[in-house]
Amino acid sequence: MTTSGCELCNEDGGEIIFRNDKLHVVLIDDANYPGFCRVIWNAHVSEMTDLPPSDRSVLMRTVCQVETALREVLQPEKINLASLGNMVPHLHWHLIPRFADDAHFPKPVWAQSVRQTPTAVLAQRRALLPALRAAVARHVSCEA
Amino acid sequence: MTTSGCELCNEDGGEIIFRNDKLHVVLIDDANYPGFCRVIWNAHVSEMTDLPPSDRSVLMRTVCQVETALREVLQPEKINLASLGNMVPHLHWHLIPRFADDAHFPKPVWAQSVRQTPTAVLAQRRALLPALRAAVARHVSCEA
Repeated sequence: MTTSGCELCNEDGGEIIFRNDKLHVVLIDDANYPGFCRVIWNAHVSEMTDLPPSDRSVLMRTVCQVETALREVLQPEKINLASLGNMVPHLHWHLIPRFADDAHFPKPVWAQSVRQTPTAVLAQRRALLPALRAAVARHVSCEA
Repeated sequence: MTTSGCELCNEDGGEIIFRNDKLHVVLIDDANYPGFCRVIWNAHVSEMTDLPPSDRSVLMRTVCQVETALREVLQPEKINLASLGNMVPHLHWHLIPRFADDAHFPKPVWAQSVRQTPTAVLAQRRALLPALRAAVARHVSCEA
């Protein structure tokens, strides 16, 4: 089901790094957060509990597989997971690798930023994105 | 396992409304967000992928049961789910019922607030908390 006017029904929502019939995983181009991924349910539903339990499991298994890939490649201080959808009520999970020197740490990325991460550090993290794409494809496709 | 110095190893983290051997559900006393709940894993682990897959499923099933109770009783505009843990890296999920007239909507609750919700509206929502406690106990315990 698609809903006209819904951004995530009409657009990929980022660079697609995995897609199957139920969901897709995208890499977000965020200057402060290289490796920021989203797992987006393909059909237009708003809440986790709008899905049948078996599909909730499929979605969270994929979220955890992407988390595994992020930890393996980027080795962040912390992973942040969130399903908010106040602006775009089409079920999607944010997966954000967090580092002690990132723009908001230890606050959530939606708070006021507290520092500027050095450009060279961000460039080092961006250089890991090809490995991240490969790790996501490997972890998600081998169990999906 | 407990970790000395970890707030969620040493404290309940709120008013306990459900507890079993693996996890507990607490109601948070947040003036702007009546019904704000957390589902906290009892043992000290940091990330979802630190749990074996079977325990990830147990945890997310409980998160969804609490979401069901929140939707049933409070009928919010949106449910926000998040596992952040940058400050307290002990696995816990935030469940926040969001309303169009709440302090931050449509922004995340960690952003700058954009309005003051009328006191009478907050009081009406707080009046639903006994029903919420009962609904959480019913939804979680019948399947846990």
